[in-house]
Amino acid sequence: MKKVGVAILGLGVVGGGTYNILKEKKNDFKKNQGLDVVVEAVLEKNLDRALSLGIDKSIIASSIEEIVTNPAVDIVVEVMGGVEPAKTFVLKALYSGKSVVTSNKELFAKHWSELEAEAKKMNVGLFFEASCVGGVPIIRTLIDSMQGNKILSLKGIINGTTNYILTKMSTAGYSYEEALKEAQKLGYAEFNPTADVEGFDATYKLSILSSLAFNTKIPIESIHREGITNITKEDIAFAKELGYNIKLLGVGKNTDKGIEVRVHPALVPLDSPLASVSDSFNAVSIVGDNVGEIMLYGRGAGALPTGSAIVSDIIFAGTHQTYYYAPFENNEKGAKETKFVRDFNTQYFIKLSVKDITGVLSKISGIFAKNDVSIEEAKQVAEKDGVVPMVIVTHSGPESAVNKAIEKIKTVDGVVSVDSILRIEK
Amino acid sequence: MKKVGVAILGLGVVGGGTYNILKEKKNDFKKNQGLDVVVEAVLEKNLDRALSLGIDKSIIASSIEEIVTNPAVDIVVEVMGGVEPAKTFVLKALYSGKSVVTSNKELFAKHWSELEAEAKKMNVGLFFEASCVGGVPIIRTLIDSMQGNKILSLKGIINGTTNYILTKMSTAGYSYEEALKEAQKLGYAEFNPTADVEGFDATYKLSILSSLAFNTKIPIESIHREGITNITKEDIAFAKELGYNIKLLGVGKNTDKGIEVRVHPALVPLDSPLASVSDSFNAVSIVGDNVGEIMLYGRGAGALPTGSAIVSDIIFAGTHQTYYYAPFENNEKGAKETKFVRDFNTQYFIKLSVKDITGVLSKISGIFAKNDVSIEEAKQVAEKDGVVPMVIVTHSGPESAVNKAIEKIKTVDGVVSVDSILRIEK
Repeated sequence: MKKVGVAILGLGVVGGGTYNILKEKKNDFKKNQGLDVVVEAVLEKNLDRALSLGIDKSIIASSIEEIVTNPAVDIVVEVMGGVEPAKTFVLKALYSGKSVVTSNKELFAKHWSELEAEAKKMNVGLFFEASCVGGVPIIRTLIDSMQGNKILSLKGIINGTTNYILTKMSTAGYSYEEALKEAQKLGYAEFNPTADVEGFDATYKLSILSSLAFNTKIPIESIHREGITNITKEDIAFAKELGYNIKLLGVGKNTDKGIEVRVHPALVPLDSPLASVSDSFNAVSIVGDNVGEIMLYGRGAGALPTGSAIVSDIIFAGTHQTYYYAPFENNEKGAKETKFVRDFNTQYFIKLSVKDITGVLSKISGIFAKNDVSIEEAKQVAEKDGVVPMVIVTHSGPESAVNKAIEKIKTVDGVVSVDSILRIEK
Repeated sequence: MKKVGVAILGLGVVGGGTYNILKEKKNDFKKNQGLDVVVEAVLEKNLDRALSLGIDKSIIASSIEEIVTNPAVDIVVEVMGGVEPAKTFVLKALYSGKSVVTSNKELFAKHWSELEAEAKKMNVGLFFEASCVGGVPIIRTLIDSMQGNKILSLKGIINGTTNYILTKMSTAGYSYEEALKEAQKLGYAEFNPTADVEGFDATYKLSILSSLAFNTKIPIESIHREGITNITKEDIAFAKELGYNIKLLGVGKNTDKGIEVRVHPALVPLDSPLASVSDSFNAVSIVGDNVGEIMLYGRGAGALPTGSAIVSDIIFAGTHQTYYYAPFENNEKGAKETKFVRDFNTQYFIKLSVKDITGVLSKISGIFAKNDVSIEEAKQVAEKDGVVPMVIVTHSGPESAVNKAIEKIKTVDGVVSVDSILRIEK
């Protein structure tokens, strides 16, 4: 029976989950895949953590050198997260002729080209299914199942933490702060939640996914990014009244004018499949010119879902004589030649506070009309302390025109403030 | 550049779609996959059809022998459908050292073991992504992305024709006959619709999918099969009132008592993701013990979606040094050792016509109770010609007990008829 030796770098949530699956399913791999998967080494500073997983002391390595020089190790699993020392360790593993399996989206979004060049030079594999959308097979789908298509768009809920927070705000009426606190208590959000709530994590994933979708390197710098920290209970309540849910979306579009990539909160229609993706679940919709729309749904994070993706890469690497190199020129040069759209054309949801409603709406409509943006719907609710909240939904228009109109609207007599400007994504 | 020579057997809907995608994306395959895919031969009796696709006369073969002896052909694409002559042709291709890509679910469900044995002997590939759920990458997901899981269940809408008919009955108030006629007019249903409406097509697909899910050959004979021809407008209306939609489901479960595989119409809760899968769309939910639930959604049929799956297999076969042999003992012996559950435990929806409602419900409840089946809900509507339609929803109970109770209920004084017995799948 073929033996595959695995080393795991980092025994955090995902590393622990991976170790447990490898242990639990050992006999299944032998029976079904004819593969003896042996954990030959782990790298983890926290000895107690390693021992609590039932790991034998003899395989706890004291340095990355010990692992990359171990001839029994075929595959190095990097689940440490962050750029350093993960990058140095992965490069050392590749340079030593080991295939690498990683869940590290930040490392991959920032340094994929460099890692892939090293893997190609050494003729070893570099697998990253676990880097995006946890246990959902999105990477394999984009690489191996969409070749007969030009992918027109990709749209999804690709961050579980923010989806949990927005779900709580929507279903339990929590404020952003209350929902964040609950997410932290449950381990869905970190003590410092910036990477998730400001959209960085989603941006890393969108960079990887849209690169594969559009066959060109999409650097993270080319992605427009907005987080969810400014979303209020009131935005969510108003959106619902108009038939929408608010979700943090990653959106990629391949248009005639160029590629459009953006991460931001957006209103999605309540009857759309994405609107009902709740809690920490993720979903990605892909539209190909031949296959039409396909959608993948599942848990985007967690020890076992992400461990499941890691394990699928280990088995794939152990049984298939093939590597997943990017099917495009994976370097900055390729990226430089790509044309990006910056002035996004979408519908908008604008919440204002106005005084003296008579005449204000007609002035606002006039300003939008002058900027070639038309209004689909306007709604106001009961006056409170002399101020009336008002919501305007525009038809599609370029962001530049909408912003120009809003600057003007702020100066209109009777407009107290412009409170929220959110995109609508249908 | 590596060249891959392709022969297409059959230029029907899927064959034509495949040919068109290969032509349209030729340069993309060269650029992205470094692969020159050349259609070297086609086999099609209808010359006009071939010429209307713009196929050069010189590559229209006159026999399968001409194709399997052509050294320029590396991959034979079988999209003829039906068992013969497809089976003979596929075996000849494999025997001649060609890899085979097929969309033929009936052939595969009935003769997979034999075809795979031949492919293994000749060390060539046998690819079948297009056999199930059109352009949705369900085969690749089951083989390559779920190895770290024991799959607990698989549940889905895997036949587009019946889903179109049931959607029309549900949304437009059509009768079964009217909806079928419309489906035939649109090309969604064949002139002889038996394979779809009686659940045979879904049974073929469930055989393939559940074999991969449960790592053992699931012969079609082991699958319980019911079609949709007895579903009435009234069933759908009553189901809706109770909060359900009616769908034809393929269900596979891996339970402590054995494997349970069944194709039948079922009530699914209106707020479940499957309930909102409409028209000819398909969706499959898979639950793994580690990954949890994942769901895949997309077009289950059609020239281009199925062609997209075929093309992905061609590119995979052309670029990867790997084959998709079943990860289990793929023969009748393996199947014989599998324990199947026959007495399914589900909730039931039972529609009766009763006279003289007083006392009837208590008698019916009594009979169910005697058979250890309890009632969750009972509902009746307005009397019509002295007969009152009544619907009973039971809690979960074994089919044998429910059937025993129903035989008894038929004899109750005041029960005119038992009109519908449908399962509920939550």
